Amino acid sequence: MKFCSQCGSQVELMIPEGDNRPRHVCSACNTIHYQNPNIVAGCLPVHGDRVLLCRRAIEPRYGFWTLPAGFMENGETVEHAARRETREEACAEVELLQLYTVTSITHVNQVQMLYLAQLARPEFGVGEESLEVALFDETEIPWDELAFETIRNALQFYFEDRKRGEFPTRHVEIHRNR
Amino acid sequence: MKFCSQCGSQVELMIPEGDNRPRHVCSACNTIHYQNPNIVAGCLPVHGDRVLLCRRAIEPRYGFWTLPAGFMENGETVEHAARRETREEACAEVELLQLYTVTSITHVNQVQMLYLAQLARPEFGVGEESLEVALFDETEIPWDELAFETIRNALQFYFEDRKRGEFPTRHVEIHRNR
Repeated sequence: MKFCSQCGSQVELMIPEGDNRPRHVCSACNTIHYQNPNIVAGCLPVHGDRVLLCRRAIEPRYGFWTLPAGFMENGETVEHAARRETREEACAEVELLQLYTVTSITHVNQVQMLYLAQLARPEFGVGEESLEVALFDETEIPWDELAFETIRNALQFYFEDRKRGEFPTRHVEIHRNR
Repeated sequence: MKFCSQCGSQVELMIPEGDNRPRHVCSACNTIHYQNPNIVAGCLPVHGDRVLLCRRAIEPRYGFWTLPAGFMENGETVEHAARRETREEACAEVELLQLYTVTSITHVNQVQMLYLAQLARPEFGVGEESLEVALFDETEIPWDELAFETIRNALQFYFEDRKRGEFPTRHVEIHRNR
């Protein structure tokens, strides 16, 4: 950030009075521009003993498999965002069963929240951001072609938890030097 | 948002190609400036049968009672943010027990995540953003002087759940026309 989005003047990095972290502060209108983590909301949609995955048609990780998920938008709830992303990427309507994973990914300032979801009927399609969408049983999951560590974690949790019949919300931290 | 934070040119509100919502887009460098909800992280700290509350020394709701909570910062986990806010506002070190409430507050683009937390010893103080910090048992809670609906909800959930000995994570939506 170099310029103030309110008045167009230059910003400088400084610790505002009463604060304890450097912020981008406008040298003209004194607006403080806070930067905070974003929420990525999504689903682990299940139909019978199979899980719905999408093959990414966008970067990053073009061509790799993922669960439907994306940035939560202003004006929506986390649950709404999770269902919307599933509709957009997999053309599927799901019922959310529970919050399943909460992953803080500190090096990219994201919190990913995935819901376990029920796909009542095997009705889905290929959304604009997907190359393919398909149902996979445990033996078919393309483990070596998954897009993100968070997706791998969620799928591993799911197949473990299904054996025990208990699905606790999992809290995960991912840290990596950029 | 009126100006591009990257180059200082004017932004215009338009739907970028491949998107379906209006965004602030720079007319000069084409940067798309996304705006997304923020996470407010905090704790419901418990010591014995009492709950720790802080009386706000800042607006909004100056003088009203709240649970320690505030905006999650870049580079931290949700849990880290919850403990940090408790340290800053109540000078208290807590152990997080579980995620307890997840509230989407759509009219202010916030998601509040409160953790049930254990205050091992009754050691706390008055942080810079607080006027008073104190432990309250159920009969002493200042219900008419609570700062926010989310705080009232969390306290009501807690005293109900304590009677049953079960503390499920509660998912709440708050919508209000601005």
